[in-house]
Amino acid sequence: MRTPMTIADFLDRAELGFRDSPGVVDEPRQPAVPVPVASYGRFAERVRAWQAGLDALGVGEGERVAVVSHNSARLLELLFAVPMSGRICVPVNFRLKPEEVAYVVAQSGASVLLVDPELDAALAEVKARHRFVLGEETETGLMRFGVEPRPWSRPDEDATATINYTSGTTARPKGVQLTHRNIWVNGMTFGLHTRVWEGDVYLHTLPMFHCNGWGMPYVMAGLGVKQVVLRKVDGAEILRRVDEHGVTLMCGAPAVWNMVLDAAATWEGEIPGRDRVRIVCAGAPPPTRTIQRVEEELGWEFTQLYGLTETSPMLTFNRTRPADAALPAEERARKLSRAGLPALGVKLKVSASGEVLARSNTVLDGYWDKPEETAEALEDGWFHTGDGGTLDPGDGHLTISDRKKDVIITGGENVSSIEVEDTIFSHPAVAEVAVIGVPHEKWGETIKALVVLAEGATADESDIIAHCKQHLAGYKAPTSVEFRESIPRTATGKIQKFKLRQPYWSGIERGVN
Amino acid sequence: MRTPMTIADFLDRAELGFRDSPGVVDEPRQPAVPVPVASYGRFAERVRAWQAGLDALGVGEGERVAVVSHNSARLLELLFAVPMSGRICVPVNFRLKPEEVAYVVAQSGASVLLVDPELDAALAEVKARHRFVLGEETETGLMRFGVEPRPWSRPDEDATATINYTSGTTARPKGVQLTHRNIWVNGMTFGLHTRVWEGDVYLHTLPMFHCNGWGMPYVMAGLGVKQVVLRKVDGAEILRRVDEHGVTLMCGAPAVWNMVLDAAATWEGEIPGRDRVRIVCAGAPPPTRTIQRVEEELGWEFTQLYGLTETSPMLTFNRTRPADAALPAEERARKLSRAGLPALGVKLKVSASGEVLARSNTVLDGYWDKPEETAEALEDGWFHTGDGGTLDPGDGHLTISDRKKDVIITGGENVSSIEVEDTIFSHPAVAEVAVIGVPHEKWGETIKALVVLAEGATADESDIIAHCKQHLAGYKAPTSVEFRESIPRTATGKIQKFKLRQPYWSGIERGVN
Repeated sequence: MRTPMTIADFLDRAELGFRDSPGVVDEPRQPAVPVPVASYGRFAERVRAWQAGLDALGVGEGERVAVVSHNSARLLELLFAVPMSGRICVPVNFRLKPEEVAYVVAQSGASVLLVDPELDAALAEVKARHRFVLGEETETGLMRFGVEPRPWSRPDEDATATINYTSGTTARPKGVQLTHRNIWVNGMTFGLHTRVWEGDVYLHTLPMFHCNGWGMPYVMAGLGVKQVVLRKVDGAEILRRVDEHGVTLMCGAPAVWNMVLDAAATWEGEIPGRDRVRIVCAGAPPPTRTIQRVEEELGWEFTQLYGLTETSPMLTFNRTRPADAALPAEERARKLSRAGLPALGVKLKVSASGEVLARSNTVLDGYWDKPEETAEALEDGWFHTGDGGTLDPGDGHLTISDRKKDVIITGGENVSSIEVEDTIFSHPAVAEVAVIGVPHEKWGETIKALVVLAEGATADESDIIAHCKQHLAGYKAPTSVEFRESIPRTATGKIQKFKLRQPYWSGIERGVN
Repeated sequence: MRTPMTIADFLDRAELGFRDSPGVVDEPRQPAVPVPVASYGRFAERVRAWQAGLDALGVGEGERVAVVSHNSARLLELLFAVPMSGRICVPVNFRLKPEEVAYVVAQSGASVLLVDPELDAALAEVKARHRFVLGEETETGLMRFGVEPRPWSRPDEDATATINYTSGTTARPKGVQLTHRNIWVNGMTFGLHTRVWEGDVYLHTLPMFHCNGWGMPYVMAGLGVKQVVLRKVDGAEILRRVDEHGVTLMCGAPAVWNMVLDAAATWEGEIPGRDRVRIVCAGAPPPTRTIQRVEEELGWEFTQLYGLTETSPMLTFNRTRPADAALPAEERARKLSRAGLPALGVKLKVSASGEVLARSNTVLDGYWDKPEETAEALEDGWFHTGDGGTLDPGDGHLTISDRKKDVIITGGENVSSIEVEDTIFSHPAVAEVAVIGVPHEKWGETIKALVVLAEGATADESDIIAHCKQHLAGYKAPTSVEFRESIPRTATGKIQKFKLRQPYWSGIERGVN
């Protein structure tokens, strides 16, 4: 028997088996009235109320519903309600400028736009056929409690469930179409490898718009896990919530964990969650020092995932193997800093040019209304990640050596900016670092490091360069270091290198030898 | 992107990520030379050698390969090798009589028959186009090491992977066709709910022919878990292996755990695996006393699964919820004695007549060459389990009240033989019990208990009946009790009630009011 693998499988099980268990704890501090702590029974009722509301509006199957919102219970509900009724959810990055949001709404052809009250004024000019502010306006004007929604006429695992626009490092963002099957397999595989169960408590430290919170909302519901909403990432607040709710599991980019480490330095009393919390790090390769500090200073288990929005996101997973538990902390951290072993069902290979290619049921169906880009990304039946990497022939683990578009080619040598960043970050005076290539007449590019010093710490350019030369081949050391107050990141913690490079390259065609 | 969900996903990951890890530890005590402890790299090589051998024999895609074997590394290899090359594996119950094996070989149309050396003489008359004795004959005469097998021309998740003949309680056994997708989803779901990971060590306490060892071989390989082969079930030997190999996970019917409990009573020193081992019980509803004793006397975590060969087998799973951990042992055991919550993706309902119906990607494709039986079993798009049950409206858990065909109807009342058995089993003098209906002129049927007393214990008919009347409604108490030396069971630990009933019903049409 074949039954369609759809998002409904997750919520159906939550409602059946965890009807009276705490399902979702909304963020108490938000401009809209928070949704009261919802059992999964109540959560499912609210999901049906959204669906009945969309029915009443006349929004048909396959139509797009865009949501621009910070993390909230309402956004979580919509991630189920919209695709479970055969419509397509478009969660939009809340940091985008109004004209960028307008582009996403227009490009996806969304007929409904739902907006966070905090963003309403800024996005006043962004319109759709139906526009609601999340909160009172949707509670009273859209949701239809007690009305059974129209069932989806032909539940199909290959139907598009969500369109997630990639943060975009250069061009206009592209809409990644994920199917129900993509999300189902990602959820099952993620849950399997991270060993999620109903004894877990999950804190939403990821933006939910980002690849649907990596698909975690689905598997958490399916396994009856309490989900605690965190509206805005803040190190000390994360520690407080871990304590208050008995959190056991969180996901986030390295920058998130560095924030927590900073907050932990001035935390009074024992760090909450020691020997209980496990974290999944992704979004950027984590510095080994961060890994070691998480395990030593917080006593949390560090695991790593590699993937992209285009892969739902799970491609690989890394955790310390039992056989490695007794290794020295530094060596364990070095092993953990690799992207990891392909998840069950994922096939990876590295192309002749060094690019990581993937085949998996988590790989996107295509870019919305972009047939050329889709064909290019899926050329030869493999998804082209755009990242450079290597597969360890011994244990099959992937190491990402560089985001391909960020590789620095200096004097004909390819340099992994990640490797240089990792080395600089191991210098005790360094709080943050980004390494970029800047134009150089002789070598094409040369290496520049942008450094944020730790509070109260001192170091000058020659210290940093000497530190690199001590640990790396000479050509990998930066030739210049600039000290900054901060380094801009996307909402998901990624450094936007193209923005850092811009001032140096303006008016120059990037030369690659 | 869609990639086919096939058994290859499991072995591919084992070979990639656990190439040098111990994969399979064969049974040392068997008539054929055991396969040396095999890393997953070596295991995958052996799988390819089987495939190349079948290629050389001219066995085409879709052809059936039957294997009659006690648990062994070779059988484990064949569970991968045959379906991964697009052929169909038919693992046969080693307890069947020669004419029954001949029936299975003929009905499945197997072109290859592989036989355990211990069974060779008894099965001398059972023939197929190609017949090999497992061991030296297959190592030298069939397997082709170093030859790449022909790839499966069109890997398809809906292709039949195995045909497993149901143990059959009345008629000729039927061949349950499981597809790659059935087995893939069962493996993922099983691994998810039992929280399998590479730190586990799995002991094969189940017969591997039985629903492919419940699909465990696949998920264990995919997660890099060491698999220890146990050729024949024996309580003391299970305790020794748990100790020797650091076993953490086992599956089996209640009878297996009762054997272990018996062996533990005379075990010298601490019971191995305390607070480390978890067991999955299925095949028959476990008595609450067994559950309690496993947790108290062995210190092993008890979990339960419900399913059938026709459902790959996973339909439900039950484990003590964190919120229930502090309940009194007896109440915890009572809750654990239920079949459990539907696994992710499984839909259950109870028909008007009380039969449990299921929809899931783990439900069989059909019975091999039995279109009528298939249509009947899948009527209205639901699989008919033949078991009676109820769904708890509070927490969604299924309780199997009776195998439908075994229900006792006495004086118009339906009595769950399981409930009566459970009550009798709670009497301290009782080691084993089976409850059946026997003909009665006035009530149609009346209840008879067949009891095996514990060693050295005494109890008579009136004690047992009084014990039942104390705990159950009067009409549920047996009207007669017979004491026996043993109760016959199938290889999978099921009591074959139809055999127990036969002598009482011979010559009588079973009357149901």
